[in-house]
Amino acid sequence: MDLRFGKFPPPIPGFRYSGQRAGLKKDPNAKDIALIVSDRPKTAVAALFTKNAFAAPPVLLGRKLFKSARGMGRAVIANSGNANAATGRQGLKDAEAMQNQVARTLGLSRGEVYVSSTGKIGIPLPMEKVHAGIARAIGALSEDGFVDAATAICTTDKAPKFGYGQGKIGNTPYTLALMGKGAGMIAPHMATMLCYVLTDLAVAPRFWQRALKIAAHSTVNAMSVDGDTSTNDTVLAFANGAALNAPIVGGRAGDALVRHLTDLMAEFARSVVSDGEGATKCLEIAVSGAKSAAQAQHIARAIGNSSLVKCAFYGNDPNWGRIASAAGAADPSLRPEKISLSIANTPVFRTGQPLPFSEPALNATLKKSASVSIALSLGLGKASARYFASDLTPEYVHFNSAYST
Amino acid sequence: MDLRFGKFPPPIPGFRYSGQRAGLKKDPNAKDIALIVSDRPKTAVAALFTKNAFAAPPVLLGRKLFKSARGMGRAVIANSGNANAATGRQGLKDAEAMQNQVARTLGLSRGEVYVSSTGKIGIPLPMEKVHAGIARAIGALSEDGFVDAATAICTTDKAPKFGYGQGKIGNTPYTLALMGKGAGMIAPHMATMLCYVLTDLAVAPRFWQRALKIAAHSTVNAMSVDGDTSTNDTVLAFANGAALNAPIVGGRAGDALVRHLTDLMAEFARSVVSDGEGATKCLEIAVSGAKSAAQAQHIARAIGNSSLVKCAFYGNDPNWGRIASAAGAADPSLRPEKISLSIANTPVFRTGQPLPFSEPALNATLKKSASVSIALSLGLGKASARYFASDLTPEYVHFNSAYST
Repeated sequence: MDLRFGKFPPPIPGFRYSGQRAGLKKDPNAKDIALIVSDRPKTAVAALFTKNAFAAPPVLLGRKLFKSARGMGRAVIANSGNANAATGRQGLKDAEAMQNQVARTLGLSRGEVYVSSTGKIGIPLPMEKVHAGIARAIGALSEDGFVDAATAICTTDKAPKFGYGQGKIGNTPYTLALMGKGAGMIAPHMATMLCYVLTDLAVAPRFWQRALKIAAHSTVNAMSVDGDTSTNDTVLAFANGAALNAPIVGGRAGDALVRHLTDLMAEFARSVVSDGEGATKCLEIAVSGAKSAAQAQHIARAIGNSSLVKCAFYGNDPNWGRIASAAGAADPSLRPEKISLSIANTPVFRTGQPLPFSEPALNATLKKSASVSIALSLGLGKASARYFASDLTPEYVHFNSAYST
Repeated sequence: MDLRFGKFPPPIPGFRYSGQRAGLKKDPNAKDIALIVSDRPKTAVAALFTKNAFAAPPVLLGRKLFKSARGMGRAVIANSGNANAATGRQGLKDAEAMQNQVARTLGLSRGEVYVSSTGKIGIPLPMEKVHAGIARAIGALSEDGFVDAATAICTTDKAPKFGYGQGKIGNTPYTLALMGKGAGMIAPHMATMLCYVLTDLAVAPRFWQRALKIAAHSTVNAMSVDGDTSTNDTVLAFANGAALNAPIVGGRAGDALVRHLTDLMAEFARSVVSDGEGATKCLEIAVSGAKSAAQAQHIARAIGNSSLVKCAFYGNDPNWGRIASAAGAADPSLRPEKISLSIANTPVFRTGQPLPFSEPALNATLKKSASVSIALSLGLGKASARYFASDLTPEYVHFNSAYST
């Protein structure tokens, strides 16, 4: 697949979008209502929601919907500026009202419309503004509205995040596109990772869900700005079948789809981490030689969430001791004498012994790198995992300790 | 027990101490060799070591010793300025040489002498200086050397940490004293929590170890500046029996001892957290109403290690959303509708609903508090746990990202 992240996709057959302003954000020019609609009745929807016990009403609604709708759906209505979280029963009613308005106006069933919200926590949605905004968004739906929608879901993002790939599966040319938002979880003021994937391929709903889960595992579920999970995190993937291929159920076509989906979502993960509040670097942590994928993931995650490791890389310090210590603390069963470590492709530690390397040279490399690879081999088995993390900077602390007014 | 933290204890029968300079630190006046000796042959020793897989040679030696010595021991020799960590086989030889010198000169068996090191990682100990320093430390042993020893184990600590309590168990008056160091784990440059407890009580070795484990659980094992565990963390507790009581094996006397030990070690935990690099506050997180102690601890720990929570309190922001979200992310089985939360004794959230409270008033309270209580009730059961954590500040990041020279 030919992957272009940061470029907006050409029109994708059967999808329309819009992004409008409802007035939920202070900025008088900021869009805050996004709508994505598939015009094809048999659109498969895969969905992943935050596991946070304090899931917000739109997520509670989405979970219920996904259980009852058997993997089919047509639209997502999203707002930014207000997360509709910690808003109790009223919050659920408001999410349902958003869903209802879209379904009624577009002639869909309620069970086909998902809802996302992102922004401030604990404040009821101003529903009059929301309804007026949704009405405008429905009126503005267009196959050229992709960037408007991607812009309307942003909160603290420095820029909208989107990309696409095109390729062939069998003889069928197709497009796989993504729009998303997220720059660290900074609830209760602004929050949440949202990610919407769209393709014109036909995919069997069960396989589509499986593909999304696999792709998420090493991408959006393996990234962290600060280790926290939002109350509103949502990934939705729509496959509307406009490409008229035989629905993909697995096999070689399925493998290709999973690979392409993973590549596209990995780019999104990188963009979220790089856009983390105050972040100067994306750390790409690869743990290999583990006894199990779970072990590899646990250790990669521990390294990516170690404040000491994150501070060291902000300081461009190739501080292997902190990486080893974070790994060793996360898993006391590690065998130091079997461990090897490279930083930015420079081996610094092998089978338990520090290696001689030029610290000034590696420091200089780190200084000019926006993305730094950390490769840790455990020497215990064959499993591996990847994790994306930002560095930790004074700006992050300033940003997240600023008292809200 | 009458507890005085920050005060040095009167002489404790049967213990001598010293703190000397070996030249392991740059500061020409800094002490860096500490020695604690019990003069009584039947001294019970309890010990806890870091579980980090990259444990340093002094810890590897200590673990071996503790297994073979059946809970008896006489001395600990400690140095600061160099952690003797990631130093391979030579590091183990050097730790043994420190042990040997003390044992030989004082006429003890090697198995009776523990070794601790704290400071830079990855640099071999300059053994000539170390041996000369140990010789001086042995020569300087005195029952008045407590503060010298406490000073000699410090690294980035703003001040030495010690305290004591006196009381009676049955009719026996006794002293329980503690010296320790730690201000966050900032390996590989400076590292480690060390904690030495001394009492003149007679305690059966097996019960002494059990008492130390219980006390550590809610104190030194429930605190974190940055969530990382050092390669050298060590707790040693000496009970030398000079008080001539019948050895404590449990029962009411045992319960009292555990309680007093826990209180003393809790003060130490507070002092370490308050002295965390850049910290402005100690957060005391109490989770109650849990199904199990493990659940309570897991959630308390997650809150105490959430960068977002820690940043919020640096900003004096009573940000209950971040606390709830950190708890909910750590345990998806939580039931929001059963959860209540107080910050600095102000209820802010009850059974799933935000409560009205005066944010300016609570903000003002936080501003003037060096210690802030966070009380989270889960409403699921009867188990509870406590956790001490520092806030997260720009100074922490500056300190930990400063490139070493």
